[in-house]
Amino acid sequence: MLKAITIAIDAMGGDDSPKKVIEGISLHSKFSFNTNYKIFGNSDLINPLIKKYNISNNRFELIHTTNFIAGEDTALAAAKKGKDTSLWLAIDSLKKNEAHAIVSAGNTGALFLISKLNLKMIENIDKPALSALWPSKKGMNIVLDLGANIDCNSKNLVDFSIMGSALYGALFPHDRPKVALLNIGSEELKGNAMIKETYQLLNQNNFSLFDFKGYIEGNNIMEGNVNVIVSDGFTGNIALKTAEGTSNFIISELKKALTSSLIGKLSSIINFSNLKKFKDKLDPRLYNGAILLGLDKPVIKSHGSTDSIGFSNSLKVCEKIINGKLIDQIKENIR
Amino acid sequence: MLKAITIAIDAMGGDDSPKKVIEGISLHSKFSFNTNYKIFGNSDLINPLIKKYNISNNRFELIHTTNFIAGEDTALAAAKKGKDTSLWLAIDSLKKNEAHAIVSAGNTGALFLISKLNLKMIENIDKPALSALWPSKKGMNIVLDLGANIDCNSKNLVDFSIMGSALYGALFPHDRPKVALLNIGSEELKGNAMIKETYQLLNQNNFSLFDFKGYIEGNNIMEGNVNVIVSDGFTGNIALKTAEGTSNFIISELKKALTSSLIGKLSSIINFSNLKKFKDKLDPRLYNGAILLGLDKPVIKSHGSTDSIGFSNSLKVCEKIINGKLIDQIKENIR
Repeated sequence: MLKAITIAIDAMGGDDSPKKVIEGISLHSKFSFNTNYKIFGNSDLINPLIKKYNISNNRFELIHTTNFIAGEDTALAAAKKGKDTSLWLAIDSLKKNEAHAIVSAGNTGALFLISKLNLKMIENIDKPALSALWPSKKGMNIVLDLGANIDCNSKNLVDFSIMGSALYGALFPHDRPKVALLNIGSEELKGNAMIKETYQLLNQNNFSLFDFKGYIEGNNIMEGNVNVIVSDGFTGNIALKTAEGTSNFIISELKKALTSSLIGKLSSIINFSNLKKFKDKLDPRLYNGAILLGLDKPVIKSHGSTDSIGFSNSLKVCEKIINGKLIDQIKENIR
Repeated sequence: MLKAITIAIDAMGGDDSPKKVIEGISLHSKFSFNTNYKIFGNSDLINPLIKKYNISNNRFELIHTTNFIAGEDTALAAAKKGKDTSLWLAIDSLKKNEAHAIVSAGNTGALFLISKLNLKMIENIDKPALSALWPSKKGMNIVLDLGANIDCNSKNLVDFSIMGSALYGALFPHDRPKVALLNIGSEELKGNAMIKETYQLLNQNNFSLFDFKGYIEGNNIMEGNVNVIVSDGFTGNIALKTAEGTSNFIISELKKALTSSLIGKLSSIINFSNLKKFKDKLDPRLYNGAILLGLDKPVIKSHGSTDSIGFSNSLKVCEKIINGKLIDQIKENIR
């Protein structure tokens, strides 16, 4: 049997919280029997929800606080709200080894700043990176950094390769990760000086965790031929947001096309189950959970606008990361 | 009546050339009565096609040469092939004022290098930029630079804003262009030093050609609220390729979903006309034609893999650029 694990949860962040958080915990608890939940937030709001969604008493602990961070707070203002916000308390419980990971659907800047203030960086890693799952034709990729660092050097990108591979390994234990560098041409000649230097470093050394596959262009991210795509945070964020925008654009054009006439509407209804399969494959709730890598404890950000199903998926990500010993893997592979 | 214009055309570049080029000219000539075509390439291959596609004798001139540049030639090797390749001769005719614009569906690197070798830069512009049309919910945007320059400074990005606005004005004469800088956050605080400096330059000055609308994130490129999106060539190329890849991914998943069962296939057939409208809106042939801006003559790159319809659309882009006096507009607005 797997060892019991504990996830620290800020219940007060994100749209429609704490409702979606508590409902998400309830969903997760039905399938994951070795996970316990440390829930931080306002008990007046949370207790009725725990009853409603029927979470067993032996699975959770509720730590009451009325102070919380709002979505519109700057990271600095959020940190200054004090050590008794639900987010700060959740991170503090991780620091004190009372939990194995923290997840929040709230303010991203606050989560990262307060985590960095309280948790240590893994030795020999200079910069943390934000990573997330990205769907591909063959399954899921990891892409990082998605915006934690605007300026990166080649050492940072090598670190990101190792951390991203460790994450991929924790989530998909049966695959040996293939790593590629995001660039504007697949030939060795293109790209800026920093990327070329990173290429040399990754190409000349053998890494026990992954195979280096060279450069990848933006149009191949979703082909699924590599598993970990590495980039500086500026470029990675542009790629992520552009993919989001393109996806929204196409889906909205598709909706317009399929419902612009009665016959269109009717045949869409006939084809409902196929369109649903399509929607399900692209459902962002499936790959909800961005992971801040580089700190010596796992810090997971759920999308603020996700629902209870998305939130329960971010708990699944936490669980896999803890059971896959992500942090130990990174430590062992960083020199 | 509009003045007659002449487009210089390298007929030998790209997949299925010269066939698609000659067929594309034929299509274009049926709708544009004031355009003449200077066609460069192998007359043994081209003459039968001109007969087949029925182009009137008074609309074209054919300049015969057997030397041509292959798709896999490096730009340097292509330039060294001599001054009698179809591409070099076409660019040379532009230099000698025998044509108003050049278009090629062939080797991109060769087109840009040989253009830069033969044509002058517009005074006060340091770097040329590659721009293209990008579909949005409200019509078409211009995005630049898409890969001509990896490293840019703030002066370059201001130049790109002016050139992109002049291009937008030539293509859509009834709109006053709105310009935005591609960045990773919409707040003034985010982004690297170069982007922040560009923001200040664009915000503090009044430009007669356009209104500056601040930063834009990748997910908003296709919303259609701005018309000209400005970026360095590395970031722009990553965004373009990522959008392409996302679009391919979604369309392939959609196809799988709609044809994975008999009922799916049947209802797709019923819904054929709506799906066709959807496909048409996303048809890359509609916005075929990347424009190299900054040289004192218009240089247009058609996609190598497009067909005759796509090629005729790149001729339409040439025509609009010439009639819209793009180069004069840029010269007047660059200080």
